[in-house]
Amino acid sequence: MSVSSVVEKYCPVRLDDENSTMVVLDQTLLPNEVVFLQLKEQEEIWEAIFNLRVRGAPAIGITAGYGVYLGTKQSKAENYDDLAKDFAKAKEYLATSRPTAVNLFWALDRMEKRLVCEAGKSVAHVKAALKEEADNIRQEDEQTCLAIGEHALALLKPGWGLLTHCNAGTIATAKYGTSLSGIYLGQERGYNFKVFADETRPLLQGARLTTWELQKAGVDVTLICDNMASVVMKEGKVQAVLVGCDRVAANGDTANKVGTSGVAILAKHYNIPFYICGPLSTVDLECKSGDDIHIELRAPEEVTSMWYQKPMAPTDVKVYNPAFDVTDHSLITGIITEKGVAYPPFTDSLKSMFGDDM
Amino acid sequence: MSVSSVVEKYCPVRLDDENSTMVVLDQTLLPNEVVFLQLKEQEEIWEAIFNLRVRGAPAIGITAGYGVYLGTKQSKAENYDDLAKDFAKAKEYLATSRPTAVNLFWALDRMEKRLVCEAGKSVAHVKAALKEEADNIRQEDEQTCLAIGEHALALLKPGWGLLTHCNAGTIATAKYGTSLSGIYLGQERGYNFKVFADETRPLLQGARLTTWELQKAGVDVTLICDNMASVVMKEGKVQAVLVGCDRVAANGDTANKVGTSGVAILAKHYNIPFYICGPLSTVDLECKSGDDIHIELRAPEEVTSMWYQKPMAPTDVKVYNPAFDVTDHSLITGIITEKGVAYPPFTDSLKSMFGDDM
Repeated sequence: MSVSSVVEKYCPVRLDDENSTMVVLDQTLLPNEVVFLQLKEQEEIWEAIFNLRVRGAPAIGITAGYGVYLGTKQSKAENYDDLAKDFAKAKEYLATSRPTAVNLFWALDRMEKRLVCEAGKSVAHVKAALKEEADNIRQEDEQTCLAIGEHALALLKPGWGLLTHCNAGTIATAKYGTSLSGIYLGQERGYNFKVFADETRPLLQGARLTTWELQKAGVDVTLICDNMASVVMKEGKVQAVLVGCDRVAANGDTANKVGTSGVAILAKHYNIPFYICGPLSTVDLECKSGDDIHIELRAPEEVTSMWYQKPMAPTDVKVYNPAFDVTDHSLITGIITEKGVAYPPFTDSLKSMFGDDM
Repeated sequence: MSVSSVVEKYCPVRLDDENSTMVVLDQTLLPNEVVFLQLKEQEEIWEAIFNLRVRGAPAIGITAGYGVYLGTKQSKAENYDDLAKDFAKAKEYLATSRPTAVNLFWALDRMEKRLVCEAGKSVAHVKAALKEEADNIRQEDEQTCLAIGEHALALLKPGWGLLTHCNAGTIATAKYGTSLSGIYLGQERGYNFKVFADETRPLLQGARLTTWELQKAGVDVTLICDNMASVVMKEGKVQAVLVGCDRVAANGDTANKVGTSGVAILAKHYNIPFYICGPLSTVDLECKSGDDIHIELRAPEEVTSMWYQKPMAPTDVKVYNPAFDVTDHSLITGIITEKGVAYPPFTDSLKSMFGDDM
């Protein structure tokens, strides 16, 4: 099966052929079971987001788009105003599914703007427009990821060893992913990359998800514990690091899954280029530096007992469990976006990418 | 309970009052159960070493010493020559329990030297001498660890945040440990250290053992995942790093639990002093540099499925699982031994510590 077919097959969220059911890959069951959920009701869609069955900022945005479309489609309203009320209910409800996910709100707001654009039109017309808008969100993400992959691939050479952290792949996006996109495109073109995936404690996105999806596409992938990145680099097995991002500040400081800043420091020590991959929508020019980024602290149990047969630390031990960290811009070789690669000084290069929008 | 009483209570291996039974803390059950095994038979002692119920180089050496003593004590021999044959059997048998543990052979050889010194003496005399030699091994380790702790404590200030990796504590030694010794002495003297313990994947010695023993002694300890060391350091919470060592080369390059080299690189990046703690017996002047140190690769299952309710990675995924890594001497602030602190250039400072023995 071609790489493209594989990433298509494991699409994290799509509508079925009748546009009445959302088909979601249940990521909580990976890598042991591959289950596609058939979701029709708003409660089911809410639950899938809440319980991380679908995860990754772009995938959550796409789910929100299709979710609010399905909620509105099921409305029995006979005119625009009543339909808009049902839309508002669906939007408000889905917004509570994961209150820290920026893309959730972004997608819901975008759907609402489209609704407003269609004010006064027939119910059938508005429903079709919402379907189109949700499709646009998905298709634009796919194009963005492809463009990021092309820009990344231009920086890589065949046979290189690549290291990644967490999961910013197919199943976090519409297709191809961000940090994994260049790897998939390289695989299609015979680059024979050797990829090292950090397991990414405590939630093991690298072990559970990244190795799984790369393996499905035939990529040569090796799992390591997070604390083995240094020895793998020292042994000359890594020629570049590619990671995703949750938020990029105007100066290039980047928030991503905890551990990313450590990998960046190791890469600098071993003179290995370190690239951030993400859509321009992740760059927040209003945020001047990493100091302005709030880091979410999560439950101790994720570290001490989650996944385990029994607790693996004293039950009353203090745990510090930040979900993200901020990688200083001075550690970043380049930020790969759909519009190209931003190089230091990032304050200039990132700003210029927004072009006339500024 | 005083710190000293606590570390005494959780002594990993000792003889009972009648010198007929070895009392071993079963470290495989920690932190969920505190079970002291009563071992009399050679098969039981062998099994405890083989299955890592007792672990840590010094503790294994002490177990071997008492083990071969008990094996000889149980002999029904009526003269020295027959007793020496039973000693040889016990030694040969225990040597197969953990073939990669240097301290195991070191202790068994030391016991044999004592046996040879007592050649021709009465059976009762030889048995008493072997008991004395095993006690000496234990007491010397206790003194060594105490001296390491004093030298370490002289480098630390009250209130400091300290980070450690893996477990080089009480339960790996006769008492106090190596990297944790200064922390215990500081605790006794009101230093109020705040300790961060890396969980230390894949075998979780930090989560299971280090947090457990520090907590028992009342030390303020916080568990983190290995990939969180960077963010903790960035936030200014760490003023020094203390780790143990498995082998130190003549130039200061140090083999220790995998992940140690990564912590050292982070410490250098954040300008935090990084100390290796270990007895001079760990320094191998015959080994010129880390390039001469062979790194053991271990089973994939330790990373993919051990401890877990079900596999946390695709079952056929490639895994790279080195047990140790080598920290370059250029990353090490000082090597703390029982004879004081060696500073760069280590080739000179380590050699001079051996003094007239050279």
